Amino acid sequence: MIKVVEWKNNSVVMIDQRILPVRETYRVYRTYRGVAQAIRDMVVRGAPAIGVACAMGIALGALKIRARDFETFKRRFDEVTDLLASTRPTAVNLFWAIERMKGVVERNKRLDVRDIQKRLVEEAKRIHAEDVETNRRIGRHGSRLLKNRSTILTHCNAGALATAGYGTALGVVRGAVERGKKIKVFADETRPFLQGARLTTWELKRDGIDVTLITDNMAGYMMKKGLIDAVVVGADRIASNGDTANKIGTYTVAVLARTHRIPFYVAAPTSTIDMNIRCGDDIPIEERDPAEVTHVCGKRIAPTGIGVMNPAFDVTPARLLSAIITEKGVVRPPFARNLKKLFKNGRR
Amino acid sequence: MIKVVEWKNNSVVMIDQRILPVRETYRVYRTYRGVAQAIRDMVVRGAPAIGVACAMGIALGALKIRARDFETFKRRFDEVTDLLASTRPTAVNLFWAIERMKGVVERNKRLDVRDIQKRLVEEAKRIHAEDVETNRRIGRHGSRLLKNRSTILTHCNAGALATAGYGTALGVVRGAVERGKKIKVFADETRPFLQGARLTTWELKRDGIDVTLITDNMAGYMMKKGLIDAVVVGADRIASNGDTANKIGTYTVAVLARTHRIPFYVAAPTSTIDMNIRCGDDIPIEERDPAEVTHVCGKRIAPTGIGVMNPAFDVTPARLLSAIITEKGVVRPPFARNLKKLFKNGRR
Repeated sequence: MIKVVEWKNNSVVMIDQRILPVRETYRVYRTYRGVAQAIRDMVVRGAPAIGVACAMGIALGALKIRARDFETFKRRFDEVTDLLASTRPTAVNLFWAIERMKGVVERNKRLDVRDIQKRLVEEAKRIHAEDVETNRRIGRHGSRLLKNRSTILTHCNAGALATAGYGTALGVVRGAVERGKKIKVFADETRPFLQGARLTTWELKRDGIDVTLITDNMAGYMMKKGLIDAVVVGADRIASNGDTANKIGTYTVAVLARTHRIPFYVAAPTSTIDMNIRCGDDIPIEERDPAEVTHVCGKRIAPTGIGVMNPAFDVTPARLLSAIITEKGVVRPPFARNLKKLFKNGRR
Repeated sequence: MIKVVEWKNNSVVMIDQRILPVRETYRVYRTYRGVAQAIRDMVVRGAPAIGVACAMGIALGALKIRARDFETFKRRFDEVTDLLASTRPTAVNLFWAIERMKGVVERNKRLDVRDIQKRLVEEAKRIHAEDVETNRRIGRHGSRLLKNRSTILTHCNAGALATAGYGTALGVVRGAVERGKKIKVFADETRPFLQGARLTTWELKRDGIDVTLITDNMAGYMMKKGLIDAVVVGADRIASNGDTANKIGTYTVAVLARTHRIPFYVAAPTSTIDMNIRCGDDIPIEERDPAEVTHVCGKRIAPTGIGVMNPAFDVTPARLLSAIITEKGVVRPPFARNLKKLFKNGRR
């Protein structure tokens, strides 16, 4: 299994996703500031992986705090979580991980600082382990939706590299393949960061899964040709009504899927579902550096002095979703009602 | 005016569109084989510009033929046109230019070879001059369709660089701007060849027209945000029923425009309309080198050993078109009937 984010000798080790597949480089972070910068710079990306990295960053930050009393510890701990909370605004898993880590502190405030620190490290490791298990469950539930000998289109990378391992959207593909189904994948290259071209193709090829790379603007052509049987994508944040923020371009794929009557599935852990917000309009959309659009691999492709926009995500309205595949099962429309039910039933 | 393709001292000079906007380099071609290779390699691209370059390439080839009798000349001339016909299959302007040049030979077969050669050079220059005039007419007709203070989305480059000058889709923008309208342009970057990022932004910026670059997968987001008032694109071949082949991704933009109830205009000279074919299914779609997808600016972005597809064009069905803007006027649906009428009325 690819080691995306790992806790190792009181440091966090991450594969540098900015330079894959050209080089497979692992970076070691010994401070929470380093981890925060790595999240911001997209050394690590993908909502679940961001959640795991964030939890480990917090554990790292907490470990370094020298405090005898809880109040001092808590004040410094809040600085750690505040910085991590400021790294990226859209993926809710970041805030979910922060809440889980804060809960550990809250529940253990009577313990010695060293014991709290120990429990924070344990919690971060637990979030990591749970994520892999969660993905395998998503894969099992989702695998039933994919027909044998079908071709899946995916956008961005919702694979092992976007999680602690196995993947969400690609977890569904892996789940189907492990159950003996023959699945082909078309991968949108996913400009500007090229997660599809660089990461999805790389990890599927490693697993021996048939993958074909296309540019983002070819998806419509492929659907019109009848080459795509289903779309499976990940999510960065799902509102309580099912509206889904995911990598820029996902909305376009969803419109195309609807036009061609192709099922459109979102695969995501329940930690990506934000029951506190009513709809997609409430999801903050990160606008990133224009240089990501005007440059590729460090080379300028556009003239200077022009306007550039670089929203990192878009929101697909719930009405375009055929189902949301979670570790707790497959949720069908109406999403507002069925997501509520999912959370009432409690975590499994 | 940008000098896209020029006849100069019995050679053809072209701006190298593969390396714009980083470098503005002009290449000189002295043989028809050189011109054919330049068309194939996309030194020159865009249906009308390909037509002009092809005509000049034929003139160049014809000039070099040493023959005393017509039969020898004609045999060698056919070799020239055959090679040029094999360069790119989709843009019909190539074949239209070949037919015009063949017509000159046919009509003048009783003249001396040197006189035929002279007339071929004149015809190539005429095709060049006509194209600029045609574009200005397209601009004039199309300008009426654009509202003052509106924002246009365009895909690929159907500008001065895609023609002998002025442009088709961008000719419409220029026509509106010249008539005092305030127009903003959003340019899809247009992977894999990045004509939008490299060429459309470059030529609009030169003209002082407000241009904003986005990646192809952002178009849906911009439309959903209400930022786009109309789409104007060029065409590589329009079937007699209005089905339109244009740069890959155009179909996706058309689906998005229909979904968001945004008018979708195709701007093209009548030389791009192929009345000999019934519908878009009959238009051959060029599949280009996978390296265009797996590499950007010579740098590899994807792993080796994966599948890659690289169709250079797609077909937008006529039902998604609001109008076709030609030099002879604006054609509205039903296109099959109205295109027939346009051609019956003869060339203006």
